[in-house]
Amino acid sequence: MAQAILTIDLEALRGNWRALAALSEGETAAVVKADGYGLGAAQVARALAQAGARRFFVALAEEGAALRAALGQGPEILVFSGHMLGDTALIRDFDLVPLINNIDQMLRHVEALPGAPFGIQLDSGMNRLGMEPAEWAALRDIALAQNPVLVMSHLACADEPDHAMNARQLQSFRDMTDGIEAPRSLAATGGCLLGADYHFDLTRPGIGLYGGLPFADAAPVVSLDIPVIQTRELQRGETVGYGNTFTASRPSRIATIAAGYADGLLRAMGPKASLMAGDTPCPVAGRISMDLIGVDVTALRQVPESLSLLNRHQTVDVLADWAGTIGYEILTSLGARYTRVYHGA
Amino acid sequence: MAQAILTIDLEALRGNWRALAALSEGETAAVVKADGYGLGAAQVARALAQAGARRFFVALAEEGAALRAALGQGPEILVFSGHMLGDTALIRDFDLVPLINNIDQMLRHVEALPGAPFGIQLDSGMNRLGMEPAEWAALRDIALAQNPVLVMSHLACADEPDHAMNARQLQSFRDMTDGIEAPRSLAATGGCLLGADYHFDLTRPGIGLYGGLPFADAAPVVSLDIPVIQTRELQRGETVGYGNTFTASRPSRIATIAAGYADGLLRAMGPKASLMAGDTPCPVAGRISMDLIGVDVTALRQVPESLSLLNRHQTVDVLADWAGTIGYEILTSLGARYTRVYHGA
Repeated sequence: MAQAILTIDLEALRGNWRALAALSEGETAAVVKADGYGLGAAQVARALAQAGARRFFVALAEEGAALRAALGQGPEILVFSGHMLGDTALIRDFDLVPLINNIDQMLRHVEALPGAPFGIQLDSGMNRLGMEPAEWAALRDIALAQNPVLVMSHLACADEPDHAMNARQLQSFRDMTDGIEAPRSLAATGGCLLGADYHFDLTRPGIGLYGGLPFADAAPVVSLDIPVIQTRELQRGETVGYGNTFTASRPSRIATIAAGYADGLLRAMGPKASLMAGDTPCPVAGRISMDLIGVDVTALRQVPESLSLLNRHQTVDVLADWAGTIGYEILTSLGARYTRVYHGA
Repeated sequence: MAQAILTIDLEALRGNWRALAALSEGETAAVVKADGYGLGAAQVARALAQAGARRFFVALAEEGAALRAALGQGPEILVFSGHMLGDTALIRDFDLVPLINNIDQMLRHVEALPGAPFGIQLDSGMNRLGMEPAEWAALRDIALAQNPVLVMSHLACADEPDHAMNARQLQSFRDMTDGIEAPRSLAATGGCLLGADYHFDLTRPGIGLYGGLPFADAAPVVSLDIPVIQTRELQRGETVGYGNTFTASRPSRIATIAAGYADGLLRAMGPKASLMAGDTPCPVAGRISMDLIGVDVTALRQVPESLSLLNRHQTVDVLADWAGTIGYEILTSLGARYTRVYHGA
C-alpha cells in the first residue's frame, strides 16, 4: 500500500491534558472542535474522558451531535457558535449546551427550548464572538436568572504573554462578570499558561492537548510516516517535479513518497521541509505536488520503506515554521487519506 | 445551523469534461484522485461516467477500491502509484489497473497476479514517478509482450505552454514509445491545451474538470456560502481577531462567519481575501482563525444570512492568488465540515 500512516498517541494526549489540568485549581475541560484538531474527535474525546475531562467544546452543533454519539450521555458538550437558526433539534436531541453570543440567540433559545441549559459567551475585546459590554449589561439580569452553566470569553493574544491585550481583556471580563454566581472561563491553552488570574472556574485547553505551542512542554501526539514509491539516480543538472524547481547540483538519489498537499501537507512548506530516515534529515526536492513529494535521499546508505515527516524532532510547530503558519493549521489540515493508527486507546 | 454550504455543480463539471474531450480526437479519461480534487470522488466520477468517461485515474489503490464501489463494474480504474507491497488484494478484488513504475513493481505484479491488466508509467524527465529510459529499454520487450492497457507519462511544465521542457518531454516520450501497439497517454489538463502532438490515444484531464487553471475556459464548479453568526459595530481604533492585526480606521461593522482554516480556507489568504454579498466585496478583517473569520461588512446596507467565498467571480484561482498557491490546493483543501450539495446529479 502507498497510504501514509498517521499515528496518534492518546497516552501523550492524556498526559498533556493532565499537565495542563495540574496548572489550575479549577476544572479543566477540552476543546475538540474541528474533528479534535484534525486527529479524530471521537477517539480524542473518549481518551480525554478516560483522563477525567467532563466538558467538551465544539464549534458547531453538527460537531456536537457527532460527539454525543461518540461519548454517550454524561459529559457536557458546549457549542461556541451558540444557538443558530436551524440548530434547535440538534441541541435538544443531542443534549448540547449552546454558548449564547447575542440577544437574538438568547431569544431563540428560551423560546424554542425553555429551561434547556445554555452558557453565555462574552466579548472582552477580540470582536469575534460574544456579547459586548453594553449588550450584556442590558441582558445580564435576565440571563443570570436562568442559571447559565458557564459564562466565558476568549483571549486574542494569549500566545504572547507580554501583550498588553491580555490584561485589558482580563479586566474587561472581570468588569462584566465579577460577583456573578455562574462558573466563569477565560483561558484556552495560552490563558492556562498566563497564571492563576486567568483561570477562573474552568480552563479549556485545545492546542496544548495536541502537542502544539504555546504549550512548550507538550508531548508530541502525532507522527506521520510516508511510503517511498520509487527511488531514482539523478545526474548533475537533472530537475525534479513541477516547474523544474529542483536541479541536482551533484549526482543525487531522489525518493518519491506517496503524500502531498491533498493530504494537508501545505504546499507552502516547499523545499524548506525535510523528512527523516532515522536521525538523518532528507530535504524535499522540488515542489510538493498533490499526491507525491520528491525527497533527496543521497545521504542515506539505504532507502527505507517509508520516511517520517512528523515525529519527536519535527513537531507540528516545526512544519508550521516551514509553511509560514501555526501548528494549529498543520494539525487541522491533516487529510482523510491516511491510515490512522491510535495508540493507547 | 452554522455549517457552511459547499455547492458542487455537476453539470458544469460534465461541461468541462466535454469541452476538454472536444479538443482531442482520442479518448478522454478523468482524474479523480484526492477524493475528486476534494469534491467527492464518488459523485464526481458518476457524473463524468454519465457524460461518457470510461477510464478514471486515482493515486492510491485504496482510492481505487472506494471508487469501484461507487462506479460498479465496467469503467477502468487506473492507479498512479502502481502495484505497491500490500496492494495485491485490492487490485484483484476491486479490478484495478496499476500503472507500473519500475521493475520491482513489474515483478510483483506478474508474480502475484499473472495475466491481470496493468499499465506502464514512464518518466520522460520529471523525475517523479515512472521508469527511466534505461530501465524501460531493459524491460520493454517483456512488458509489451504482456499487452499493457496503457503506456503513459506526465509533463512537469505543461501549465507553462512556452516552457522548453514540454518539447523535451514529448521527444523523450516518443523516443521511448514510438512504434508500440499499446495505447499511449501524455497529457493532463495542461497537455490537452498544448495541441494535438501531446494528445496521443488518451488524455487525462484533472484540474480543468473542476474549474481550475490552466483551463481558462472552464466553468466554475464549486461555490461556498458561509453563515454569519454575529454582527457588531466597532468604533475607530478597535481591533479584531487573534493578534489584534485588524484595527478599524473608521466606525465599522464586522460580521463573524462560521468557517476557518480547519475548513481548508488557507490561513495564508489572510486579509487579502474578500467575501461577497451579492456584488459587493467585503474584505476579511484580521486573521483567519480555525472556525471563524471576521469580515468588514460596513459597505452593506443589510447583512445577509451568509456571505459567499467561492463563486463565479471568486474562483479557486482567485483564492489561490490570495494564498500564494495554486487552485489545485484550494480545491483539495476543502474541508469535511461543510454541508455538501450536489446540483445536476
